[in-house]
Formats: sequence, C-alpha cells, structure tokens
Amino acid sequence: MSKHLKGIAASDGIAVAPAYLLVEPDLSFDKKKISDPDAEVSRLQDALDKSTAELKIIRDKAKETLGADEAQVFEAHMMILADPDFIGTIKSKIKDDQVNAEAALSAVSDQFIKTFEAMTDNKYMQERAADVRDVTKRVLSHLLNVTLPNPALIDHEVVVVAHDLAPSDTAQLNKKYVKAFVTDIGGRTAHSAIMARSLEIPAIVGAESVTTDIKDGQTVIADGLTGDIVIDPSDDEVAKYHEAADKFAAQKVEWEKLKSQPSVTSDGHHYTVGANIGTPKDMAAVNANGAEAVGLYRTEFLYMDSDEMPTEDAQFEAYKTVLQDMPNKPVVVRTMDIGGDKHLPYMPLPQEMNPFLGYRAIRISLDRQDIFRTQLRALLRASAYGKLRIMFPMVATLDEFRKAKKIFLEEKKKLEDAGTKVSEDIQTGIMIEIPAAAVLADQFAKEVDFFSIGTNDLIQYSMAADRGNEHVSYLYQPYNPSILRLVKHTIESAHKEGKWAGMCGEAAGDPIMVPLLLGMGLDEYSMSATSILKVRSLMKRLSTEDMKKLADKAVNEMTSNEEVAEMVKKATGQE
Amino acid sequence: MSKHLKGIAASDGIAVAPAYLLVEPDLSFDKKKISDPDAEVSRLQDALDKSTAELKIIRDKAKETLGADEAQVFEAHMMILADPDFIGTIKSKIKDDQVNAEAALSAVSDQFIKTFEAMTDNKYMQERAADVRDVTKRVLSHLLNVTLPNPALIDHEVVVVAHDLAPSDTAQLNKKYVKAFVTDIGGRTAHSAIMARSLEIPAIVGAESVTTDIKDGQTVIADGLTGDIVIDPSDDEVAKYHEAADKFAAQKVEWEKLKSQPSVTSDGHHYTVGANIGTPKDMAAVNANGAEAVGLYRTEFLYMDSDEMPTEDAQFEAYKTVLQDMPNKPVVVRTMDIGGDKHLPYMPLPQEMNPFLGYRAIRISLDRQDIFRTQLRALLRASAYGKLRIMFPMVATLDEFRKAKKIFLEEKKKLEDAGTKVSEDIQTGIMIEIPAAAVLADQFAKEVDFFSIGTNDLIQYSMAADRGNEHVSYLYQPYNPSILRLVKHTIESAHKEGKWAGMCGEAAGDPIMVPLLLGMGLDEYSMSATSILKVRSLMKRLSTEDMKKLADKAVNEMTSNEEVAEMVKKATGQE
Repeated sequence: MSKHLKGIAASDGIAVAPAYLLVEPDLSFDKKKISDPDAEVSRLQDALDKSTAELKIIRDKAKETLGADEAQVFEAHMMILADPDFIGTIKSKIKDDQVNAEAALSAVSDQFIKTFEAMTDNKYMQERAADVRDVTKRVLSHLLNVTLPNPALIDHEVVVVAHDLAPSDTAQLNKKYVKAFVTDIGGRTAHSAIMARSLEIPAIVGAESVTTDIKDGQTVIADGLTGDIVIDPSDDEVAKYHEAADKFAAQKVEWEKLKSQPSVTSDGHHYTVGANIGTPKDMAAVNANGAEAVGLYRTEFLYMDSDEMPTEDAQFEAYKTVLQDMPNKPVVVRTMDIGGDKHLPYMPLPQEMNPFLGYRAIRISLDRQDIFRTQLRALLRASAYGKLRIMFPMVATLDEFRKAKKIFLEEKKKLEDAGTKVSEDIQTGIMIEIPAAAVLADQFAKEVDFFSIGTNDLIQYSMAADRGNEHVSYLYQPYNPSILRLVKHTIESAHKEGKWAGMCGEAAGDPIMVPLLLGMGLDEYSMSATSILKVRSLMKRLSTEDMKKLADKAVNEMTSNEEVAEMVKKATGQE
Repeated sequence: MSKHLKGIAASDGIAVAPAYLLVEPDLSFDKKKISDPDAEVSRLQDALDKSTAELKIIRDKAKETLGADEAQVFEAHMMILADPDFIGTIKSKIKDDQVNAEAALSAVSDQFIKTFEAMTDNKYMQERAADVRDVTKRVLSHLLNVTLPNPALIDHEVVVVAHDLAPSDTAQLNKKYVKAFVTDIGGRTAHSAIMARSLEIPAIVGAESVTTDIKDGQTVIADGLTGDIVIDPSDDEVAKYHEAADKFAAQKVEWEKLKSQPSVTSDGHHYTVGANIGTPKDMAAVNANGAEAVGLYRTEFLYMDSDEMPTEDAQFEAYKTVLQDMPNKPVVVRTMDIGGDKHLPYMPLPQEMNPFLGYRAIRISLDRQDIFRTQLRALLRASAYGKLRIMFPMVATLDEFRKAKKIFLEEKKKLEDAGTKVSEDIQTGIMIEIPAAAVLADQFAKEVDFFSIGTNDLIQYSMAADRGNEHVSYLYQPYNPSILRLVKHTIESAHKEGKWAGMCGEAAGDPIMVPLLLGMGLDEYSMSATSILKVRSLMKRLSTEDMKKLADKAVNEMTSNEEVAEMVKKATGQE
C-alpha cells in the first residue's frame, strides 16, 4: 500500500526515484575507562585513516561534479585531520586520562571549537569551528561504525529526504542525480526552496514527517506542482505521475516559445518581467529565460563572498559585467544590504537582541560612509556601460533617502570633475519593505525615481512576525488585505508622480499574487529567472481590466489571506 | 567654573544635590601562585566576613526604606555566602592549586554560574546565577580593598549618576534621598525613565558622558524639564534653578486643583484621561491623580511576579480589587502579554532569533488555551464588580481576534450556564500595535468594541527598529507622519462604526503628541498616573478645532518627525 503525504509545493516539477535520506545517524557514545591505551590509539588512527580516505573521494567527486570552489571545504577538513596539534592532543588524552577514543576526540574537539568560537573578532577562525565539528562527526562515525550520509557521493537518481537543507547541503547536491527534494520544515521562502527554484529541481518543503515516514531506498513520487508526496507508489500511481510529468514537460516547451516575446496581457497591456540576481554568474540564466530587466542585483554577495572589503575596482568590474550583459535593458542595483542575518567575516557588527529590527542595510551605509561612497563610485563608473538604476534598501524615513541621495550626488560630481565618464540618466529609488515607507509612499514619490517592493520584509514587519520562526509562520500572509493595501498605495503613489513601481520579492513570481499586481498596475515584476516564462504565460491569459476589479475587491471587501487566495484562484482558473 | 551637559528630559522636576556615582569599580586582578595557602584562606575568610556584615546592614536598611520584598535579594546573597559547598570548593582550590583567593573565587564562581545557567528549563536556578555573580563582586571588592556602591545605604540627599539603571538598581533607590538621577544611555521609553516618572523623581537619560564627567560628591543640578545638567554650579546658577524648581512646584499645586475636574478642552470637548497600571498596588496613585479610567492594566505582572502559573482565584481577586477601586469608571484589562523580552520563570519559551517578531502575547494565548481560558474565566467572574473591558495584545489579523472572541464567548456561556454572575456589558477590543492591524482598522472596527493604540510597538514595527537598540534609536519617531497616519486611520475607522479609540502607549502623555491626538479625535488617553494632571492642564488651554487643522497639516503635508514636532511646539506655545 502506498502512503501519501502533503507538503508545501516549493519548486515546480515532478520526480519519481528512490529516497536518499540525508539524516545524521545517532553519534552518541558512553565515556569509558580503558585499560589498553595503545590499542585505543590505534583504533583512533584507524578511524582517522578511514576518514581521510573518505574525504579524498568526496573531495574529488565534488570537484568533478560541483566545481573546485564547492570542493574546498573538504580540503579544509583533511587539513584538520593532518594537524599534529589536534591529533596529538587527542592521543595524549587517551593515554593520560585512560579514556576511550570517542570521549577523548569529543573533549578535544569541544575545546578547539570553544577556542575558535571565542575569537569573536575573527570570523575566519570562527568558521573553522564548524569545520572541526564536521570532521569530528566523520571520525566519530567511523569509531562507532555507523554511516554518515555523503550527498556529494550520490551517483544515481534519487529524491533527497531531509529535515531541512542548509546552504552547505544544497551546495553539495548534484543536479544530474538529485531529481527532487522533500523536507520536514520550511516554507516557500526558505533558503532551500529558493535554491530549488534556481536549480530547477522539484521541491516540497514543510511536509513535517518525511524523515520518519520515508525509509532509505523506498520509491518516492515528489510532485512539486501540488506538494503531494507518494511513498511506495503502486504502478498505476507511477504511471499517473509520469503522465503529469510529461504534461509539465510539454508545458515547459510551450513556455520556452515565449522567451523572446514581450510580457503582454490578453487585453494588450505590456509589463516588464525581470530577474533577481546575486552575482554576474547568474546572468546566464537571466538571458536564457528572456528577462526584460534585472529588477534586483543583490550586491551583498560581492561583500559576503570576499575575505576583505571588495575594492572599488573589483566592484566596478562586477557591475560593468552585468550592465554590459543587458544592453538597453534596465539593471536595478541594490546597495549593500548586510546586517540582520547577513554578516561579513571581516566587519564585526554589534550583537543585537532583534537583528531584523537592528543595524542593517542603509542604516549601516549612512553610518559607514567610507564603505558606501566606495560602492557608489564603483556604480557611477559602471553606469557608462548600460542602463543603471540604484536602489537603497531598508529606507524608513525620507531623511534617510535624502542623505543617501546627497552622498550619491557628491560622488557623482567628484567623478565628473575628475573627467570620469558617468551616465546622465541614473535613476535613484528605494526598496519599499518597511511599513512606514509604504504608508508615506506619496511623499517619497515626489523625491525618488522609483519604488521596488520587497514583500518578504514588508510582510515580516507589517505582521511583526519573523519569517524564519516556525512558531509564527502562519502570519506570513502575502495576500492579507493589509499587505495588499500597502502595495496598492505604493503603486498609486508612484504613478501619481509619474514614477514607476516594481516588486522584487518572492511574491512577484507567485501565480496568486501576479493577477492582483496586474490589477493594481504594477509596472515591473522581478523574480527567480526560472519563473519568468511561467509568469509571462500566465499574464498572456489575464486581462488587466478584469484583474483591476479583482484587486479592488480584495483590498476593499476582503478580511483575510485565505479569502483573497480563494477568490483569485477561482477567478483565474487556478483551482 | 561650572560645566554643562545636555541629555533627554525623561521625568519632570528639578534637583540640586551632591552626586552619588553608581558605577562599578575596577575589579580586575592577576592570577598568582601563592606559597602560604593558609594565609590566603584566612584572607578569603576575612573578605567573606566583611561581605556578610555589609549585606546584613544593606538588608536591614532596604527592609526599612524599601520593604521586605525588595530586601529579599540580599537574603539570597547571604545564603550563598553561607553555602558550605560554594565556600568549601573555593578554599580547596586555594590549597590544591596554590592560587590566590581572587583567582580561586572567580574560577569557582564561574563554574557555579555556568551550571545554573545551563538549567535552561529552570528559570529559578538560572536567576541564582545572577545572585552568585553579585556576591562574587562583593567578596572581590573586599579582597581588592575597593568600594562597591551600595545604593540601598544612601542616607542623605543625592543625585544618582549611572551608566544605565537596571530594574534591580531602581528597586534599591530610596525616594526620600534620591532627588534625581542622570544616566549615560537610554531614551524616554527606557525602563529607568518610566520608573522615574512613576516614582516622580526628576530624571535625565542618554546624557552620554555623565559617569566620566561627574565625580562622586560634586554638586549637580539636574533639570528633568529641559534635560540640562550643571556640574559644580555657581551660586547664581543654583539660585536660578531653585527659582525654576519653585515655579515647577507652584505649577504642580495648580495641577493638583484639577484632580477632581473632568478633562476638557478650551472649546468644551470632553475626553477621558486614564492611567496605566501593572498591579492592584498601583491603584493608590491612580486615584490620587484623579484618573477617569484605567486605560491599561498589564496583567503579565501577575504571571511574572509568581513562581507558578497564577490560579483562576488568585487572578479573580486581583481583577476584582482593581474593578472595585474604580466604581462606575471603565477598566481596560489586557490579557497576558508575555514573550518578547518578558519571560515566566516556570514556562520555558522557544529560543528565538528575533523575539520581538516571535511567539508572544495573543499568539501564545491562542496556542496555550489552557492558560488563556483560565484568565478569561477570572476576568468574567470579576466583571460583576465593575466596568470591565477586555483587550487582546499583538493582534495582527482578524482571524486572531475572531478566535479569541470565540473562546471568550465559550467561557462566558459556561459560567452563565453554571449560574455564575457575569456582567452583560463587557466590551472586547484589541491593541493596535502591529502595522497590519492599523492598516486594516476599518475592517477590524466592524467586529471589535474598541481600539487601544500601543505606540511603542507600533513605532517599533512600522519603522523596523528595535526601540531598545541604541544603533537604531534615531528611528523611534512618534511624530513621523507615517505613524500619525496609522493612528488617524485607526481613530477614524473606530468612529465610522460607532466605536471608541484610546491610546495606552508612552505617547498618550507626551505634550507634543496630545495636541495632535486631540485634533484626530482620540477618545481616551491612558498614561503614567503621575502625568494625568499635567495633560489635563495642557488640554484646558487647547482648542479641538485648532488642533484638527494642526493634525491634518501634519498628516497631509509634513515629511519628517522633526518638522511635525517644531510645528506643534510653535502652535501650542511649548517652545
């Protein structure tokens, strides 16, 4: 008998394959007095040798399938196993304290981790703590004769089953073999879900009990379109899902035809559908999916992926590459958005009780003008190579925008005075992601060139609910009329002053939200590149006039997220 | 030459007195090998004896001036000094490791603190960690021959000077001798500022350098009306401030006459001015200041000041006392608002990355209906004794209010069916402190009986800025037009449905905010009891019609907090 589970459909597509359980085995042990320390040391050495051999295979495999960058972490693990201080201390402890290898390893490892973690002003050493923890697990697994999952070693088609997927896990997944993944926790906006959409792997998250209900090797159907999971399916069920998968593949072929077409509604209104990117490397997918703009270039990755503050020249090169890749198409670059849950290894930030309500983004930029002015100069120099728009994140008050704009104009004048070529047509705008800015959008619209609505943060602050906190995840309500009102007021305020409004949050590519946004007249929709053709296809069959009525009804008459979702699904045939 | 400093005026009044520096001395020491352990143990014993003797004096003094409750903490400290396990371990360490008493004390203390703090499911033991830390400091001070400040021992008039004042510090201050306090950090809404207003002690906070600029014993003028601090004033300056203090005293006499008068504007409109309370004990001040209502009864203190979940009967008694103390006057009771920065020793809450955006208030009540239903039953039973209004905190969506209301009606019916007397006229309303609720106030107004606006949280979430975080404190902007718009929409939405709207945040007693609120038609103003007469006096000289024009201008034309504050000050003669 097959078993059915339901989760949150997080990335489109359907897969049928054996399950690969990415779950850590029990690594608990008893601390024991031993009588033969030499035998114990040689038991440890054996586990160390096995671990090194295993890491070598994983590293080579990872290099081959994922690239040298992703393989580097295993290099670091091997270095720890070769560190005479670390290994020597463990061996001495076995002899001096007459304890088993597990206990000695664990105690010494704890001590190293504590030392590294105490180096609070050295993020590099702090990260070494994670490496020591990982290596210790591996050696322990060999001492205890249990098997650690090694996702980098997967060499046949599987559906990955995990409690949650950390960024380091997803980095090790080989798209060739991982046909889908399903997790116990998370929502559509979790890191793993966003990653799945960008890799175009079907994914179902928040399915609660997959790691307990699914056994390693069991056949699993994962339907990322509906959120359905079938364990040990019957032949009929497999056939049915193969059919659905074929239908989805056919649909993708249809979507593909829209690649070089504009984004137009059934009644002939044209909108801009763009892509969000993190690094110049993402431009391949942007062009492969026919984006009409880069609606959000998250520059913080430039800072986060570096060991020191990126220079003006390094930034200039990155910005220039993206602008040159988008001839005659607008590129919206967001200035550095660090703080909150994003930290730089070389720039210590204050410890905060509520980092999402703290020192971040424009608040840091206005305070640390050295960093901000360098970024603006790099952007100004790159502006000569394309259609640049600069956007400031986390603006709450008009004063903040005015200060940022003033600094921008100062740097522009300096460069011009020095004879550097700078575009005369750089728009400056703000993210609308703080409720106060949305409420006062009409005043902001008189001074900014554009708005881009960031739904994740706007919802988080409007609802006073951390979107990463599972205890309040029910308050992540993108269709709640209160959120829709803030969005509508923002769009209308922009239009009243002849400015444009976009959206670069997850919601811009959401099939329930897009009809409402069309109805409110949103100008630009920026999303994961892989969602573009699907949204363009959806727009083709919707009429702006009809959607206007729908949006008005949602904003003026509805009282809950569910009511609105139901109405839109019904009206647009998405039931 | 006198020296002048400026801080934030946090509590009205003027004082001139010698400074008392509540600053911890340097307690650092070197770890040393010693050769005569017996001598070292006797040095430790000497410091222990001195500490015990000192604590005994402090405890007696505290009992006498502050009451038995406040003195209990010193009892706990003395018990630690008498604990043979704690003291024995320190003495053994001196002998075994041949180290000085400071090093042994500090090492053993750290170990005890660590053990207590690790008991994460036992808040009582976790709090013992703070006691061990305090006692260790005291013993160390005697070993090092430096003097710890002992605020409970103050026996002459002083101005207390501190970096910040923790709740435990303020509890030890004797109003008879502490004529004012000044601190380096904090704002008008800091705990210390609120405490000062409730004790009616002049206070200036956020003056940045008071602990470095003021020496112990120096004469200090503290003007809590303007935020001015004068160190070593000239005779002329002292005379000038004595004059200002006399004028303020005369003004208080004038205010006193308003005690039994209604709150009426110059053009004859009547409003309700009420008080915020935390426990039935606060009712003395409420009646002494002529409050027309209790606009906010924060019931979480009932839970926080207890070692276990308070029973239905215990709650009933507390609610009944307050209701009986307010015959024919409304009492708005807010259901349990824990979570965020408020925890219960006997109810572990999840660790959260952003507790202010987490599991708190109504979110907990709807989840833990056992606790919620007990509170509602106690309230329903108490309703027979007065004019009860029940208010739910942190409501973000209509669904949440509907669920809470449904549970309320279920409990009401159960009690009625059992023949218990319950008032037929209990209003149920919500706090407006989450932006989403303010934006959708028109829909909420159709279902609730009233709104009460909580400005501190509303500002915090609308601006996405933790009000306790000094790095973003510049975003605490109560007069920002975005905040004023949310307030205005809330009031108008209530009136459109024939409901009333109040405010129970700090802003309701703020002399810049009150004119704007009158202009928007706010019905009820609830504040610290000690602010009531001052606000009543202010209202007397303002015209609702004029204030309406002022409020409209602020909301429709202004773009910043400062612009609005300037305009109101000018228009109401508060410059």
